[in-house]
Amino acid sequence: MSIPIILTNRVDSSLYRKYLKSAKSDLKDATEKILPILRSVETEGDLALRRFTETFDGIQLESIVWNPMDVQVHIDPDIEKAFLKAKENIESFHRAQLRKDWSIQVDGNRLGVKHSPIPSLSVYAPGGTALYPSSVLMGVIPAIIAGVPEIQLVTPPQKEGLPPILVWLAKILGIKRIITVGGAQGIAACAYGTESVPKSEFVVGPGNTYVAAAKSYLAGLGLIGIDSPAGPSEVCIIADESANPMWLACDMLSQAEHGEDSSAILLTDSEALAKEVSRELEKAFEERPKRLAMKKKAIYENSAILVMPNIEECISFSNELAPEHLEIQTKNPEQVFAGILHAGSVFLGPYSPVAMGDYISGTNHILPTARGSRIYSSLGVDTFLKRVTFQEISRESLSRLYPYVKTMSELEGLDEEHGTSVKVRTEGHQH
Amino acid sequence: MSIPIILTNRVDSSLYRKYLKSAKSDLKDATEKILPILRSVETEGDLALRRFTETFDGIQLESIVWNPMDVQVHIDPDIEKAFLKAKENIESFHRAQLRKDWSIQVDGNRLGVKHSPIPSLSVYAPGGTALYPSSVLMGVIPAIIAGVPEIQLVTPPQKEGLPPILVWLAKILGIKRIITVGGAQGIAACAYGTESVPKSEFVVGPGNTYVAAAKSYLAGLGLIGIDSPAGPSEVCIIADESANPMWLACDMLSQAEHGEDSSAILLTDSEALAKEVSRELEKAFEERPKRLAMKKKAIYENSAILVMPNIEECISFSNELAPEHLEIQTKNPEQVFAGILHAGSVFLGPYSPVAMGDYISGTNHILPTARGSRIYSSLGVDTFLKRVTFQEISRESLSRLYPYVKTMSELEGLDEEHGTSVKVRTEGHQH
Repeated sequence: MSIPIILTNRVDSSLYRKYLKSAKSDLKDATEKILPILRSVETEGDLALRRFTETFDGIQLESIVWNPMDVQVHIDPDIEKAFLKAKENIESFHRAQLRKDWSIQVDGNRLGVKHSPIPSLSVYAPGGTALYPSSVLMGVIPAIIAGVPEIQLVTPPQKEGLPPILVWLAKILGIKRIITVGGAQGIAACAYGTESVPKSEFVVGPGNTYVAAAKSYLAGLGLIGIDSPAGPSEVCIIADESANPMWLACDMLSQAEHGEDSSAILLTDSEALAKEVSRELEKAFEERPKRLAMKKKAIYENSAILVMPNIEECISFSNELAPEHLEIQTKNPEQVFAGILHAGSVFLGPYSPVAMGDYISGTNHILPTARGSRIYSSLGVDTFLKRVTFQEISRESLSRLYPYVKTMSELEGLDEEHGTSVKVRTEGHQH
Repeated sequence: MSIPIILTNRVDSSLYRKYLKSAKSDLKDATEKILPILRSVETEGDLALRRFTETFDGIQLESIVWNPMDVQVHIDPDIEKAFLKAKENIESFHRAQLRKDWSIQVDGNRLGVKHSPIPSLSVYAPGGTALYPSSVLMGVIPAIIAGVPEIQLVTPPQKEGLPPILVWLAKILGIKRIITVGGAQGIAACAYGTESVPKSEFVVGPGNTYVAAAKSYLAGLGLIGIDSPAGPSEVCIIADESANPMWLACDMLSQAEHGEDSSAILLTDSEALAKEVSRELEKAFEERPKRLAMKKKAIYENSAILVMPNIEECISFSNELAPEHLEIQTKNPEQVFAGILHAGSVFLGPYSPVAMGDYISGTNHILPTARGSRIYSSLGVDTFLKRVTFQEISRESLSRLYPYVKTMSELEGLDEEHGTSVKVRTEGHQH
């Protein structure tokens, strides 16, 4: 077997349109299953959390809420150094996202926008092999910079106790609360609050289907805000003959390493490059056999190399794909990037593999997947800041604009009170 | 009867906490009802649209899609002038919301944000007595300024044909498509697309429970993006003894005019003012009897005047309430506003009644309701712009940062390919 190489043309797009997958998974079945869990947590609180944790995790919870300051942990100094460097860079990039309040004069009145943080946030961190400490930095740092006053971590309990790296991260981030309840019951605890878990009004972070279903359902009720729906990880690469085929193969495999449903799509105008990358993939499978079956499945079944007539077609297809990660490895990456409308995060030039953004460069790695970047943004400070608009109307302007308000409110059948509330102010001073 | 006046203190908050309503309406029943409609529209397309329109609206659709340029309408010149003035002011305020792309150097690398518009938008406009043409301006103008390339209006069909004001607005806004299908079937047509209705990836605008349920359900699937859930309209006013009681009563009634479930909460530190406002409300009921039963129900049952120990307590309660509209009518409105964290849109000073923002000042009147402003923003240019992050890593920086990537990816079990994709680049030049 080998990765599919598809020579595309404008005539028969059916050959490659199947790679435009949207993981619009119907959460209906999962939602049916979690509804009784949500209801129990809402009505029974901690009691329900303990019961579900015993049933689903096989763990009898001592404490539900932990203060990381009360837990002693030892972390390898090299790991500390790496995470502190990542923290520093993530902070630098996200601090630059902070927005100034502003106001302008419009038609004699002062109108403006003030930014204020959401009141509270829970960051969900999956447990076991899905525990990615780097994602904790990505979820928490933007919220701290936005000024969110209450931030807590939520994570499934582990038989061997709290993961030391999670406790250490919570300490250096100044987080005062770790909730050890996973799954739908963990999300419900945050949305409704219980005796021991304070309610959060926003929940972010990846999780399994039940976590996703609980987040979606509770967000639909307006009870919590959530990040964009998360699916399998994916990369798209636009490359021309100037790119290094071995590096491209590494980048595609780095995506495949996330799971067999991961996808790597290489778009190129060079058939020669396509063949070289395919050979490099095979060589890599021999040289680096770890997780081989998984990587092969991702590459052979969910990935492809599409040879397009030209780079413009690559750009246009990439915009349809709206990939989570987009690498541009061409002679002039800026020029290609100028045509890019929809992507989660973009990596320009030969020395920008996705792994740099995953861990250390400072951009956020919590990104919309499954074509979500057509409508959603990556996680950032803006995720946690609201724009509160304001206005101060002048008396002169109010009088001048009143006839328009009268006309419009009459048309909408709201003239009696809407119109009057303006009219009375045209007739006299405040007292 | 009269409006409840509640003298609050810090001891017994139960007296007034009931006004902290969240309209978390469970859309479950409505969702059950609309699921077959969504499925039919997805599979049968136009055929289903025609069938549901005959069943629910009693109308046999000639055309489903209209080009406003093909429809002749005559609009009163005063109405034209008023809407053109509103358009001008809304455009001025929203143009100021446009954001510049930017990049900075972080640890030797260039990181930045580029803004790009969502690809397509449907603006839903309810029909009949709920047709508010001003809301069409509010939904469409921010999207035009954001650069959304495809914008269409969706509205229930009317026996007497397309409302002339809607056609005229579509013309002056440059909208090329009006879809005359209402309810859940209208939303489904936009989300899935049919033979005659192009698919949209974002849907905004108010509607009945079925419209809301369809939007929520399809957004939960990741099929469309939507604005924040809309509930009954509400105003909160913070006022001290410097405020004009008659004006305050007018502002509260202007909210009540929207419907019997509307709510107006006055927070003040002055018992005298509270009593005067209550008297002014009664006087207004006598002087302006239109929609009297409705207004009385809204004022007597869903509204209240809370007399607080001081203005600080008013601010703190207002932040819990997170009102859709907040008026500040105190001696020093700016000082009060400094303490405000959660509100949809804020109206400062004596000459800023909500009606000015509803129609003419230029701010947006599509706002989060039912405490939603704790986590959501008002509709604006940002609603339709995504933030695409990007990075260009330098070779020097890549080599220097590689050990950190190695350490972190090893910890997460992703070192083989993630680590390698960085490592190979430290070992040689591109070719």
